Formats: sequence, structure tokens, C-alpha cells
Amino acid sequence: MPRYLHTMYRITDPEKSRAFYEALGLEFRRDMDIVRNGEKEATNYFFGVPGQEEELELTFNHDGRTYDLGTGYGHIAVVVDDLDATLARLKGEHGIEPERPPYTVSEGGSRLCFVRDPDGYRIELLERH
Amino acid sequence: MPRYLHTMYRITDPEKSRAFYEALGLEFRRDMDIVRNGEKEATNYFFGVPGQEEELELTFNHDGRTYDLGTGYGHIAVVVDDLDATLARLKGEHGIEPERPPYTVSEGGSRLCFVRDPDGYRIELLERH
Repeated sequence: MPRYLHTMYRITDPEKSRAFYEALGLEFRRDMDIVRNGEKEATNYFFGVPGQEEELELTFNHDGRTYDLGTGYGHIAVVVDDLDATLARLKGEHGIEPERPPYTVSEGGSRLCFVRDPDGYRIELLERH
Repeated sequence: MPRYLHTMYRITDPEKSRAFYEALGLEFRRDMDIVRNGEKEATNYFFGVPGQEEELELTFNHDGRTYDLGTGYGHIAVVVDDLDATLARLKGEHGIEPERPPYTVSEGGSRLCFVRDPDGYRIELLERH
């Protein structure tokens, strides 16, 4: 049987990203340098949610390049226990506010909102229902 | 505890995408129309690997728009049981070949390669080790 392992995207500031994803409740698991011709070309940082095997891989290229986020990629979605507490933490620690305040898509559905990580990638946050 | 739910990106041909992801071993689970002002704006298609809760959400916008894939988003990674059989299926059914033939990154590591889905999104395929 196949198995889904991770989703990868590229970031520009590993410390900032780590603080952000930890504020969402993800745990930092490990990093791995990519060395080519004796030079550290990139470092991959792996995050996950406790108890879940799947990971988020954030790639940092050491040459200082920046990225065009394009229009194709959308977001990852994460369920959190307490959406308001998570948003308060993001605002207090990172000055990050949701694109719009939490809302529900269908009557009786989960409260949700979107935030952007330090590089601008969207994250859908849903409250456990 | 938080929970990772899905990764979303946007596609231009739902049938082609479905055939591709099914050839990788993912299962189609459900679709959901997004209706705004009485018009079907988008349809979201959800895929997963059997036995695993996490999903891939593919969004199709009905207005025919196309996407710029940018340089920030990287890939999703999927483990398959038999890499050669998967590649043979992709080539036979879809004419899709890997970017380069399967290789290992470290001695004794898993064989892996990258393929592109019908919209050009990269997928890392690793052989179960």
C-alpha cells in the first residue's frame, strides 16, 4: 500500500518558520543538510504533529534566494483544539492575524480561518469539531 | 492535539488528475462543489492513500483559469511498494516519465525519483525500504 510522507515547500528564514509552526502546535523533528561538492547547499527541516507520522518539510537554500509563491499551490490544513487561543498566540508572538476572522462554511460546521506563514504560505486552521 | 488534514493545490483537468493520482495508488474519496451566488465556482476533489486519514485536495476552478506554479512550493512525497511497477504504469497509461531514473541519495537508502502530475506539480516517489 502506498503511504503519504510529507509536503515540502521552500522558506527563507528557518528560525522564524520554526517559531511560527511551533506556535501552531507542530513539533520540530529533525533537520538534514544537503551537501554538494563539499558545500552546504540546503537544509531541510521536518515538522509534524505529535502522534502523526506525516511531515511538513521546509527547505532552506543557503544562497539567499527568494521565491515566487505562484498561484497553483494552495495551503495545508491543520485542525487545532482551540482556534481562538491559537490565533491569540500567533498575534501575540508573531503579530500574525488571520486573513479574516474565523467563520463557518456550512451551518454547524467547524470554525475556520486562514493565516499566512512568515513566507506567505497559507495555512487553513480548523477548530476541532 | 493538532492534526494535519490535507495539502491543497489547484488543477486544470480533474479527470486527468484523477487518473494520474489513481495510477500512483491514491484513492478518490469525494468531491465538493463550491457554489457562490448560485454558480458553481469550484469543485474540490479529495484523494487519500488507503488506511491513511490525511488527504490531497485538488481544487478545480470552473472559469478555465490556469496557474503559475511559482518556485516556492516543492512537492508531496509518497512511498510506493514497487517503484518500477508504478513508473511502468505511469509511462504506459499516461506517457509520464520520471525526471531522472530512480536513484538513492545515501548508500543503502530508499530508491526514489520525481515525476510531474498533469499540471506539472512534482511528486517524490520513494520505494518502501
